[in-house]
Amino acid sequence: MTFRDDGAAALEWVADYLESVGERPVLAQVEPGEIRARLPASPPDAAEPFRHVLRDLDEILLPGITHWQSPRFFAYFATTGSAPGILAELLIAGLNQVGILWRTSPALQELEELTLDWLAQLLGLPEGLHGHLEDTASTGTMTALAAARSAKPGARVVVCSEHAHSSVEKACRLLELELRTAPVDAAFRLRVDALDLDGACAVVATVGTTSTSSVDPVQELADVCERDGVWLHVDAAYAGSAAVCPELRRHFRGWGRADSIVVNPHKWLFTPMDCSALWTRRPDDLRVAFSLVPEYLRVSEDVASLSEFSPALGRRFRALKLWAVLRCYGRQGLQERIREAVRLAALFEGWVREEPGWELAAPRPFSLVCFRREGSDEENEALLERVNAAGEIFLSHTRLNGRYVLRLAVGSARTTEQDVRIAWDVLRREAG
Amino acid sequence: MTFRDDGAAALEWVADYLESVGERPVLAQVEPGEIRARLPASPPDAAEPFRHVLRDLDEILLPGITHWQSPRFFAYFATTGSAPGILAELLIAGLNQVGILWRTSPALQELEELTLDWLAQLLGLPEGLHGHLEDTASTGTMTALAAARSAKPGARVVVCSEHAHSSVEKACRLLELELRTAPVDAAFRLRVDALDLDGACAVVATVGTTSTSSVDPVQELADVCERDGVWLHVDAAYAGSAAVCPELRRHFRGWGRADSIVVNPHKWLFTPMDCSALWTRRPDDLRVAFSLVPEYLRVSEDVASLSEFSPALGRRFRALKLWAVLRCYGRQGLQERIREAVRLAALFEGWVREEPGWELAAPRPFSLVCFRREGSDEENEALLERVNAAGEIFLSHTRLNGRYVLRLAVGSARTTEQDVRIAWDVLRREAG
Repeated sequence: MTFRDDGAAALEWVADYLESVGERPVLAQVEPGEIRARLPASPPDAAEPFRHVLRDLDEILLPGITHWQSPRFFAYFATTGSAPGILAELLIAGLNQVGILWRTSPALQELEELTLDWLAQLLGLPEGLHGHLEDTASTGTMTALAAARSAKPGARVVVCSEHAHSSVEKACRLLELELRTAPVDAAFRLRVDALDLDGACAVVATVGTTSTSSVDPVQELADVCERDGVWLHVDAAYAGSAAVCPELRRHFRGWGRADSIVVNPHKWLFTPMDCSALWTRRPDDLRVAFSLVPEYLRVSEDVASLSEFSPALGRRFRALKLWAVLRCYGRQGLQERIREAVRLAALFEGWVREEPGWELAAPRPFSLVCFRREGSDEENEALLERVNAAGEIFLSHTRLNGRYVLRLAVGSARTTEQDVRIAWDVLRREAG
Repeated sequence: MTFRDDGAAALEWVADYLESVGERPVLAQVEPGEIRARLPASPPDAAEPFRHVLRDLDEILLPGITHWQSPRFFAYFATTGSAPGILAELLIAGLNQVGILWRTSPALQELEELTLDWLAQLLGLPEGLHGHLEDTASTGTMTALAAARSAKPGARVVVCSEHAHSSVEKACRLLELELRTAPVDAAFRLRVDALDLDGACAVVATVGTTSTSSVDPVQELADVCERDGVWLHVDAAYAGSAAVCPELRRHFRGWGRADSIVVNPHKWLFTPMDCSALWTRRPDDLRVAFSLVPEYLRVSEDVASLSEFSPALGRRFRALKLWAVLRCYGRQGLQERIREAVRLAALFEGWVREEPGWELAAPRPFSLVCFRREGSDEENEALLERVNAAGEIFLSHTRLNGRYVLRLAVGSARTTEQDVRIAWDVLRREAG
C-alpha cells in the first residue's frame, strides 16, 4: 500500500466528513446489532487495500455513527475535535511514541509537563502544580482518590454531593472506599452545613455537575478540608475549560487550593477524545500510590517518569494534540469560543424563559440549559424521543427532584446561533 | 486555518518521517530538561498557524524523540505503527466518537465487539469470549483482577511468578490485594510445584514475560485454578500476537481455559499506541465490578455498554485502527511478519551462540534474545550505554539470576535482516 495515496484519501474523507456532518442525522438511526450484522463474521486471509476500509466506513459504519462533530450535537457535554487536534493525532500515530520512562520519549514527557503548565496558566491555576494527562476523568479521579486513600490510612470514606459524577462511585468501588453523598441546595450545590467528614479521606467537589453544571462551594470545602486534613479533589471535567475566561472565574473560587483537579480538554477545549488533565499539589502522594520501577526499567538518569504518578505504565503522546490546540487557538481564540458557547446557551435559556408552556429546571452557570415542557415526565420523555428520532438535533436528559428534565449543552466550536435556533424550533414543533 | 492544506502538510511530514526514521539516532540524545528549556514557558495569546507546530516538531521536539518507528529499535518490546493503523487514527480523530453508551456510537461498540472476535479467531482462542479494548495491559490486568476480587469475597491474594510484569504488583496495590510471587525454573517459568494458592482469588500466568519472554505452564495452572475455583488471568501482552501462527501455538496451550486474557495489538500487531485487548469468559463478573448507570445515562434500548465492563466511562474509537490493521494485513500478512521477526531473532541468537566471548542468557520462544558478553555486570552495562549512545541501535536490559543481561527484541515490521546484522556489528564493535 502507498502511504501517501492512502493518506490523501483518508484526509479527503475527513475533510468531506467535517464539511457535511451537519447534514446527517445527529443520533445514529440504527437498531442494536444492525451494524455488526452487515460486517463479515471473520477476518480476511489476504490483505485488503486501505480504500476498502474507507468504502466500508461510508457504506456500513456511518449509519451507526452518532455525530459528535455535528454542530447540532447538544447531548451530554458537546465536544469538538478541532482541525489542529485531528491533525496532531495523525502526527502522534506517525511518531508512535510509547511513554514508559523519560528516555523512551523525552519530548513526550517534557511536552506533557509543559503543556499542563500552559493550561494551568490559561485557567488561572496557581503555579507549581504537578500536571499530567490521563485518558478520561474517570481515571484521573480514581488516581487522585487512590493517593488520598494512601495519604490517610484508616480513613475510608469519600464525600461528595449526590450530584457528583458516577465515576466517583465507580472509583470508590474499585478502591473499596465508602461513598457518602451529601445533600444539595435548591441550586444543586453541595450543602456544606450538611457535611459529615467523619472517617473521610477525601471530598470530591464538582465545578459543573453532569446533570445541571451546578458548582459546589469549593472555597468553603477547602476551608473544611484543610481544617480536617482531608484531600480535596475538584472535578471540573466539563466546566474547567471555562476558567480561560476571567469573567467566568467567579465559579472557580478556591479551586487552586484543591489537592487535585481534573479538567477534560476533550470536553470543552477542542481536543479530540481522549485527553484529561490531572493536576496535584501533592505529587509525592501520587508517587507513593503508583511508583514501581522493576529492574528492566531501571536507567542511569534520575528522572521520575510520568507513569510513576499514574495507573498505566505506557502512555500515548497525547500532549502533542493539546499543545497544537493551545497554539492554534491561542488564549484569545479559546476565550472567544467559550464565550460564544455561553452566549448561545444564555440565548436559548431566554427563549425557554419567555415561552409559555416551557420552564427552566436549573440555574445556568456555563453553557448547559436544563429545561422541560410543562406537563408529565412521560410527555417530556416522549418529546425527547421524537426530537432525537427526527435527527436534526440530539439532546439528552436527566432527572431533577424526581422530574424528567431535558438538557441542551452547547460546546461544539462548530455550533452557531442558527443551530441553536433550529434546536428551539424542532423542540417546539415536536412538542406540538 | 485550512484543514486540507494543513492536513496535506501533516501527511507529508509523517510520510517523510517514516521514510527517514532509520537514519536518525534511535535513542534520543538529549539531557533531561533540554527539550522543555527550548520551548516558551507560557502559551500564546494569539492563534498561531499549524505550520508552526510542524516547524517546532522538526526543530525542537525531534531531538527529544526516541524513535520507536526505527527499524533498529530493539529495546523493551519493539512495536510498529503501521500505515493502516496511522491513517485510521486520522479517521478516529475526525469522527471524534465518544463511546459512553451504545447509542453514543453504535458503530464504535459493535465494531469493537466484532474486531475482538476477529482477533480471537486469528489467535485460535475459543468462541464466545467477551472482548473489549483498554488503553494498556496495565488497565486490562487491573480490570481482570478487580473482577476476580469481587468474584471471590475474602480471598485477597494474587499469585504470579517473580517474572510477571510490574503491572500485576501495581494492580494489587491499587486493589489492596496481597501479591505472592512463586519461584521460576531454570527457563524462568513459574514452578507449579511451588505454588501456594491459600487465600488466592487469582493467578496471573504470563505467556512471554518482559525479561525473557518465558512462558508459564498455563495448562497446568488452568488445572489447578479450576480445581480451586481461582480466577486465571493470562498476560500475553507481547507474545499473544504470535498465536496468529499455528506453528507457535504450542506456547499457548491452555490459554483458552483462562478466565481472562490480555494481548496488546500495540506491541506486536502493527497497531499504533494505545490498543490492548481484554477477553473474558466471565463478563458477568466484570459487569458486577464495574457497571453503574446513573440517571443521565439511562436509555430505552436494552444494550450493555462496554463501559460497564471497564474502569473508564468514555472510550475512543480504538477498534477502527485494529480493524484497519487486520484487514490491510490479512491473516497471511500478519503471519508473514510475525514469522519474519521470529526468524530474525533466531538468526541473531545463532550468531551469539557461535561467537566466542558471548553467551545466551535465556531460551528464546519468540522474537526476544537475552544475551551478554562474558565478563562482569559493569562491563555489560557500560557496553549497553556505549551502544545506545552511538545511536545506530537501541537495546534495553534486564537482570537474570542477579546478572546484568542485554535484550534484543525484534518486533518492528520495518526491521530487515540487514538491521539485525547492523545490531550485531555494532555490539561487537563496541565490545572492542
